[in-house]
Amino acid sequence: MERMWGELTVAFSRLSMFPFFDIAHYLVSVMTLRQQQGAISVAWQNPLASWFSAMLHCFGGGILSSFLLGEAPTKFLENNTNVLLASSIWYIVFYCPYDIVSECYCFLPVQLLAAGMKEVTRTWKIMGGIIHTSKNYTDSWMVLIVLGWARGAGGNVITGLEQLLKGAWKPETIKFLEMSYTVKITLVGSVLFTLQHIEKLPIEKHSLMFCYTFFIVVTKITMMLTKCHYSPLTPFEIILGRMLFGLRQPEASALLRSTLKSSFNGTSTNSKPYIDNVENKKKQNKKTE
Amino acid sequence: MERMWGELTVAFSRLSMFPFFDIAHYLVSVMTLRQQQGAISVAWQNPLASWFSAMLHCFGGGILSSFLLGEAPTKFLENNTNVLLASSIWYIVFYCPYDIVSECYCFLPVQLLAAGMKEVTRTWKIMGGIIHTSKNYTDSWMVLIVLGWARGAGGNVITGLEQLLKGAWKPETIKFLEMSYTVKITLVGSVLFTLQHIEKLPIEKHSLMFCYTFFIVVTKITMMLTKCHYSPLTPFEIILGRMLFGLRQPEASALLRSTLKSSFNGTSTNSKPYIDNVENKKKQNKKTE
Amino acid sequence: MERMWGELTVAFSRLSMFPFFDIAHYLVSVMTLRQQQGAISVAWQNPLASWFSAMLHCFGGGILSSFLLGEAPTKFLENNTNVLLASSIWYIVFYCPYDIVSECYCFLPVQLLAAGMKEVTRTWKIMGGIIHTSKNYTDSWMVLIVLGWARGAGGNVITGLEQLLKGAWKPETIKFLEMSYTVKITLVGSVLFTLQHIEKLPIEKHSLMFCYTFFIVVTKITMMLTKCHYSPLTPFEIILGRMLFGLRQPEASALLRSTLKSSFNGTSTNSKPYIDNVENKKKQNKKTE
Repeated sequence: MERMWGELTVAFSRLSMFPFFDIAHYLVSVMTLRQQQGAISVAWQNPLASWFSAMLHCFGGGILSSFLLGEAPTKFLENNTNVLLASSIWYIVFYCPYDIVSECYCFLPVQLLAAGMKEVTRTWKIMGGIIHTSKNYTDSWMVLIVLGWARGAGGNVITGLEQLLKGAWKPETIKFLEMSYTVKITLVGSVLFTLQHIEKLPIEKHSLMFCYTFFIVVTKITMMLTKCHYSPLTPFEIILGRMLFGLRQPEASALLRSTLKSSFNGTSTNSKPYIDNVENKKKQNKKTE
Repeated sequence: MERMWGELTVAFSRLSMFPFFDIAHYLVSVMTLRQQQGAISVAWQNPLASWFSAMLHCFGGGILSSFLLGEAPTKFLENNTNVLLASSIWYIVFYCPYDIVSECYCFLPVQLLAAGMKEVTRTWKIMGGIIHTSKNYTDSWMVLIVLGWARGAGGNVITGLEQLLKGAWKPETIKFLEMSYTVKITLVGSVLFTLQHIEKLPIEKHSLMFCYTFFIVVTKITMMLTKCHYSPLTPFEIILGRMLFGLRQPEASALLRSTLKSSFNGTSTNSKPYIDNVENKKKQNKKTE
Repeated sequence: MERMWGELTVAFSRLSMFPFFDIAHYLVSVMTLRQQQGAISVAWQNPLASWFSAMLHCFGGGILSSFLLGEAPTKFLENNTNVLLASSIWYIVFYCPYDIVSECYCFLPVQLLAAGMKEVTRTWKIMGGIIHTSKNYTDSWMVLIVLGWARGAGGNVITGLEQLLKGAWKPETIKFLEMSYTVKITLVGSVLFTLQHIEKLPIEKHSLMFCYTFFIVVTKITMMLTKCHYSPLTPFEIILGRMLFGLRQPEASALLRSTLKSSFNGTSTNSKPYIDNVENKKKQNKKTE
């Protein structure tokens, strides 16, 4: 049993992302761009601007991590094959007659498959960021976490930059640190892989890769199928919030209960309401004083 | 005849940009800054901010290309002579008694001469960007094109940055990818010089430098004399647009005809109207379906 | 006497900033962040965003100088000890029960002590920036001045960036080049230390460090005690403005007199009114012509 597990995880860790997983990543990224307001209009009026946006979406994490390491942000262009692959996908998504590709992408099984494969590439990106930093720059754990995180989820920051260049940027809409579930789970992954890299986590790298990838793929597909925005990280956020940042017992418990309820009912929830409650109570306390 | 041509182009390629062509470039850049709204007021209230803006205008391409290569953006400051020359020109343009320099610049022959010489420096910048990247970083053709382009026309992006620092930045006005003629012709030049550098274009470097420079200088002076915004690239843009991005025959031909007409009449034109026609027709088709 | 002076300045120059002076710097930076509108709310809703802002405030100069040298902006994270120290201070400032730390900081003696110690770190930062650049990159005096300045006062630019990431950025409020007294005095310090470094200023490094630090600490504490915004640099700005940028005799003298008057009365002044006068007079002159 252990031997089978070992072989399975090792075989998984040796998967090559090129070409199929990369294609899935580029397809999801370009379709995300296409669904933005005005993207089709830009593609007709200024194909170069559209291509530029698509490259930022596809290679955003790599660009950000290069910048954070003081490397050339244009480094991703050296990989001609991947850039040409991403450009081809951009071209057929935006200019295919009768929008065939976009119509096909509307089928749920296609979306699920592409999203699942894109999540697999996330693991490889985090690992790649950590190993590259460790080999070429430093073994400082803080830097490794930041670089793994940037490589895996840097697209959000880069998206802000491309909207800036398109002239459609509004400061209040680009809130990098209002982290989506994707950004949070990438941070968790970066921490885990860094701890494993510096030998503080007693687990084999290939086993961690397999488990983490399995978790994020299953979670992603479940969230897409149930159309539920419930984040599996919310209970842990609440507990950590209570322990580290002093949320009082009643509010934390109330939110924990409501979160668990909504997870069975499949309704959306987030952690904001209890913060408002806490702030209101603090204000009331100050007034009475 | 061939020998004379060879000697002419070789002698041209050995021209030094310092000091006269550099002076022309700095003069045009600083005068462009001076003509911006509020620039004179800033120069009186905060000379250091005005000097900073002038340096961004004069060395914008170099700063951007350094950033894209992961080099120090402050690298241009190592060339003390050029920085002092640019600073002197800034000083006499803004603070000369009775605005003598600005008054002289209003004469058309002076503007034409300075603009023509500035266009010559564009060729040297593109070449410099490509050679520097090739020597020190990579021979990847995509990176060479981007770096040549950034070095030759990076001023637009940097202008946005200096307006940001002045507190006068508006997202909707900084649209880097709504490319002006200057930016487009620099891209064309960068592609040509890159192809020549990687030996895909069977032409001598000095011949290409001479022909490209001749073309951009003549075009620039013609556009200034006729006050015509007609871009000589528009017919090629239309043909490429039709071939690559599926513009239908009638719209493309109609615009091509109207563009050629206006080039004889000297009226301004651009490629936007036909895009609007295409979009309207697509919307009408969707409604009827 | 000379020997005592030498021993005093040498001993002063060998002071270590860690841990007490660094603690003071982090405390002042985090308290400045805390006093911003909405900072406490952000700390409750998104502790990671709050921590990120605090790090930008504490290490802003180092991040900016790394960027300007083409180094990794994440370099500061390699110094785990300082980052953990700054994080601890952020944590106790924002999450201490009953806001004990903030309440203590309201006492004037505490503020004066912290501010004075923070000014001492400014000298070390300027020196550090110049020496690091000179050892690893270039001895060009312009680059040394810029890097010393960025390391000593880069927080203003970085503050703009963190407000951008928080979604609270407004272009008109981020005016880096409307230099505060702090930024101006850092520039003066950077020029002095650069001139000393390239042996154009006949003074020992440790003597210059002592004198400059003494000056900025005394000025800072005086300005805090008298609540006076009078900048000791204003008379020199006026004289330089007159000599270099052609301010006419009457306006310059009038402002010089009013500045000296207000320095005795302790009322605030700045150099703007005379610029408005000059501009108005220029406009009147143009109309009469």
